[in-house]
Amino acid sequence: MADCIFCAICAGKAEASVVIDDDYLAFMDIAPFATGHTLIIPRRHVQRVAELTSDERAGLFEVGNRIGTALREAGLAEDVHFVLNDGDKASQTVYHVHLHVVPRRSKDLRRLLPRVLTAFAPPLWRRRRTQLDAVAERIRAKLDG
Amino acid sequence: MADCIFCAICAGKAEASVVIDDDYLAFMDIAPFATGHTLIIPRRHVQRVAELTSDERAGLFEVGNRIGTALREAGLAEDVHFVLNDGDKASQTVYHVHLHVVPRRSKDLRRLLPRVLTAFAPPLWRRRRTQLDAVAERIRAKLDG
Repeated sequence: MADCIFCAICAGKAEASVVIDDDYLAFMDIAPFATGHTLIIPRRHVQRVAELTSDERAGLFEVGNRIGTALREAGLAEDVHFVLNDGDKASQTVYHVHLHVVPRRSKDLRRLLPRVLTAFAPPLWRRRRTQLDAVAERIRAKLDG
Repeated sequence: MADCIFCAICAGKAEASVVIDDDYLAFMDIAPFATGHTLIIPRRHVQRVAELTSDERAGLFEVGNRIGTALREAGLAEDVHFVLNDGDKASQTVYHVHLHVVPRRSKDLRRLLPRVLTAFAPPLWRRRRTQLDAVAERIRAKLDG
């Protein structure tokens, strides 16, 4: 879909630090809550969870589970949040359905707090592409299959 | 599993405001972030997402999607967050895997903020059972099938 940054990433026309490139794409969030914060999307442009087929919903969550396991094996997470913001009233900002996998570790609350407090200034938190690429590589190395 | 409050709800031995009682249970969160905040669990006691079978992961998300649609049709949500906290470092407090469906509406930030600020005093925010039962009934009325 024109003007969709995630469709542009699928088409290889926009930059991303990609972990999985298959029926679903997994790539690093550009303004991560924590190192390893990954987004998973279906290739097909769909805004809402309810517009996906059952198979697509299942696939999205399966890839999420693979990423969660790989984040732990890569030492980037002890535990993870799976978050899907469905609609703009629920903080969806890119209208191509995406599942967040957010790594958590013991005692990271202090590191997360400033990020929450500056939630309205996300560009300040954008990471360098080289840094995101390096994290993506760590996760890819731990993916099964 | 002994001492698991969600297993007790499945067995009908603990009180809950139930929306769906099938292979998966859906019931009202006792300390909701917003009216209609629903939890979905598999009957089988499993702590982590990775311990579920692929079918169970798919089923959990399918029920989540049905609840999200019903919340909108019941006028309880414009949009929703789907959140699964996987492990105690990611704020999992009941060790039986559960998917949150959290309703959001325009301009509800003001109502959510006090809840976030008192996140460490959840009992203060517990709702009366009659109130939770009434909300569950509104959602049930909008469920397909």
